Amino acid sequence: MKPSLEDTLLSAIRNIPDYPKPGIMFRDITTLLGNARAFRRAIDELVQPYAGSKIDKIAGIEARGFILGGAIAHQLSAGFIPIRKKGKLPHETVRVAYSLEYGLDEMEMHKDAVEAGEKVILVDDLIATGGTAEAAVKLLRQMGADIVASCFVIDLPDLGGRARLDNLDVPVRTLVSFPGH
Amino acid sequence: MKPSLEDTLLSAIRNIPDYPKPGIMFRDITTLLGNARAFRRAIDELVQPYAGSKIDKIAGIEARGFILGGAIAHQLSAGFIPIRKKGKLPHETVRVAYSLEYGLDEMEMHKDAVEAGEKVILVDDLIATGGTAEAAVKLLRQMGADIVASCFVIDLPDLGGRARLDNLDVPVRTLVSFPGH
Repeated sequence: MKPSLEDTLLSAIRNIPDYPKPGIMFRDITTLLGNARAFRRAIDELVQPYAGSKIDKIAGIEARGFILGGAIAHQLSAGFIPIRKKGKLPHETVRVAYSLEYGLDEMEMHKDAVEAGEKVILVDDLIATGGTAEAAVKLLRQMGADIVASCFVIDLPDLGGRARLDNLDVPVRTLVSFPGH
Repeated sequence: MKPSLEDTLLSAIRNIPDYPKPGIMFRDITTLLGNARAFRRAIDELVQPYAGSKIDKIAGIEARGFILGGAIAHQLSAGFIPIRKKGKLPHETVRVAYSLEYGLDEMEMHKDAVEAGEKVILVDDLIATGGTAEAAVKLLRQMGADIVASCFVIDLPDLGGRARLDNLDVPVRTLVSFPGH
């Protein structure tokens, strides 16, 4: 019997206790990326609802969102928008601050990365509190993007990210969930 | 008439004078990534020689190599290996130092990212001096990888990267070249 998508993905994710600090169970997606079958199934499943619809751009959040987002952009014949930590993009940018556990950080996008009305899907590996995803939504909307959906492989539902994006009217698609994280 | 691949790619790359410092012409690939047609053609052309052969893994160099490498891994049904700046990977790593213009930096790969004998293609957006690519080759070979090829969209041939990889017996594939950079 073919294993379910969820079983394939869950067994490909590595769980690292006490990383990056005691009490945190880190969900390591690198083992899933390195597993050709799991990586392929994850990408194919994420894009499945959008196959055949016109998506202009995939926006990937640095750094793991670049790996998934690059694959999704190619598969959907869309362009790719890198959303990066500040100071990494060479041309004129828009910038937004977002909260980390301690203090603030900033992320940037090129001003000409998206045109008003373009249909965009936002991609990252994991949604936790939704803080970085919300910041990315602000950048994209500032330039007039029409955000069709946001896609993540892993959901940590107890941290509230999905609700935060729901409040922004951004549909959320995830493949596996770790309640209690 | 359909524009040639080279014309399509060259016209999609943005040239930024005096970035990151006076006298440097920066070749900005983000405009190519954002152009759905150019991005698709670049990926399809890079993978073309390997279609139908068994490639186990694509190793992408952080950060732009993640975007291209993710797309290539999915297209070839291969796994993906992130090669990252130090301190970013959560599990046991191998590490190598490499020279920057001023001083040294280090890059890392998970020890279990590749198995001995696996066929790997190394991917980055651009080859200049070849210093980061050579460091990535060392990491992969330390774990026994069989490096089938290295792929880059942009070659800056006067900086000697291709010769450096030739000396390591790593075939180099590039799509566009900027002599004199």
